[in-house]
Amino acid sequence: MDDPDVDLRTALAGRLADAARAAILPRFRTGIAAHDKGDALIGYDPVTEADTAAETAMRTLLAREVPQDAILGEELGNQDGTSGWTWVLDPIDGTRAFLAGTPTWGVLIAACRHGIPVIGVIDQPWIGERWTGTPGGTEWSRESGSLHVRTHAGGDIGGAILATTDPFLFSGASASAFEHLRNRAPITRYGLDCLAYGLLASGCIGLVVESGLKPVDVAALVPVVHGAGGLLTSWSGEQVLPLDPWWDGTALAAANAGLHVTALAVLSGLSGR
Amino acid sequence: MDDPDVDLRTALAGRLADAARAAILPRFRTGIAAHDKGDALIGYDPVTEADTAAETAMRTLLAREVPQDAILGEELGNQDGTSGWTWVLDPIDGTRAFLAGTPTWGVLIAACRHGIPVIGVIDQPWIGERWTGTPGGTEWSRESGSLHVRTHAGGDIGGAILATTDPFLFSGASASAFEHLRNRAPITRYGLDCLAYGLLASGCIGLVVESGLKPVDVAALVPVVHGAGGLLTSWSGEQVLPLDPWWDGTALAAANAGLHVTALAVLSGLSGR
Repeated sequence: MDDPDVDLRTALAGRLADAARAAILPRFRTGIAAHDKGDALIGYDPVTEADTAAETAMRTLLAREVPQDAILGEELGNQDGTSGWTWVLDPIDGTRAFLAGTPTWGVLIAACRHGIPVIGVIDQPWIGERWTGTPGGTEWSRESGSLHVRTHAGGDIGGAILATTDPFLFSGASASAFEHLRNRAPITRYGLDCLAYGLLASGCIGLVVESGLKPVDVAALVPVVHGAGGLLTSWSGEQVLPLDPWWDGTALAAANAGLHVTALAVLSGLSGR
Repeated sequence: MDDPDVDLRTALAGRLADAARAAILPRFRTGIAAHDKGDALIGYDPVTEADTAAETAMRTLLAREVPQDAILGEELGNQDGTSGWTWVLDPIDGTRAFLAGTPTWGVLIAACRHGIPVIGVIDQPWIGERWTGTPGGTEWSRESGSLHVRTHAGGDIGGAILATTDPFLFSGASASAFEHLRNRAPITRYGLDCLAYGLLASGCIGLVVESGLKPVDVAALVPVVHGAGGLLTSWSGEQVLPLDPWWDGTALAAANAGLHVTALAVLSGLSGR
């Protein structure tokens, strides 16, 4: 991809992820206090010192390197820009996992051009693994090396692994729809947060179904899933434009078109609430 | 602890875990085929090449170093011994997690003396972290170093994280009891398999509630939890003796006596089926 704007920001996204790791890791499994910030979905949405430290570190880098870009951050709010690019930052996606000490949370970094997610990074600092999605593909990397990843090819839900964050987040028709998918998939996994989308990109997971997402939860996932050959839409099959007020907070990620059609038939028409 | 029998086997357990790692890691996230072996709880209990390779590697070491010890293995069955010691091996606890590519499965190694679990190892090869429980305490280790761990001290379930493998494994009165605990704990985590007990030992998780366990699923967990100051009993509060035919397959791990009493009041009298 000969697009210097994209190349510059892809390299920068990697540096942001490095900075977030350095801020977060000393605070993982240290029993730091958590407090409710009042917008919890299941009664508890903790914000940690690590969250704030990581976002501050990333914003410092952005202010120095691309001061003309806008920023939307999970913890520290909006900053306007003039370049048409918006960085969307979620320093710790999966704060419940973080507090439980499990290695299934992640740092999410996206760069959107005119509202469309173009570059996405999912980073898991404790394991040290990272997925970087760009128009040129999705790369998985760890200290030991890197490789281009592709999603699972099988289009039959009977051979696909299903994931969602919490089965008790669904209610009413959404709960029935999820139950329907769960009964058809041989394995269902919970509580993986953003890691589920990385594992979908790597060909391990076939479907991820979630609702109630915010822009910072999803922007980075889109380039990672698309770059690996997967699809990520709303439950009604529309392109996920996380900065667009019309996006309804639902996400359906599928490894391939066959799985996407199957899941869409079950979920289409549901609002996810 | 001046017990050469224990010291020898503690060192050996670490070597077994190293051997299992070497056998398993090349096969993780490689899309190897899985087949049902027919004793599945939720319809799918895959056995992988990695399982068999790891157990074979561990048995080879045991045959060389302690041929007088008995072995009970998840994949390759029983072998009698004459020393009073029995090794209990589960090369991959959490095969569903393994297939999904998540880093929440583990290698379980226990050494029981006259049926009582004395040494336990929980190893997570992909992350490279390990919990080793002995009568002298529980040590967490990674390449970067090691430390003695202690469980969480707070006895209030309102400040404790709850974990179980799959909320849909419970039915009837067990489901109601679990629901009761889930409604009181601020965070519930699923699908962690043995990692939940390691995280309980490390002070992150407060309660783990499971049923339908087999001896190989639980033997290693007992020394890890006890060594860190926690409790691990059946749902009726009895000592877990995994090799004893009277054990009912239930497990309640608690970070401290306060949490144990609270959970026991809810679960006591239930069979877990």
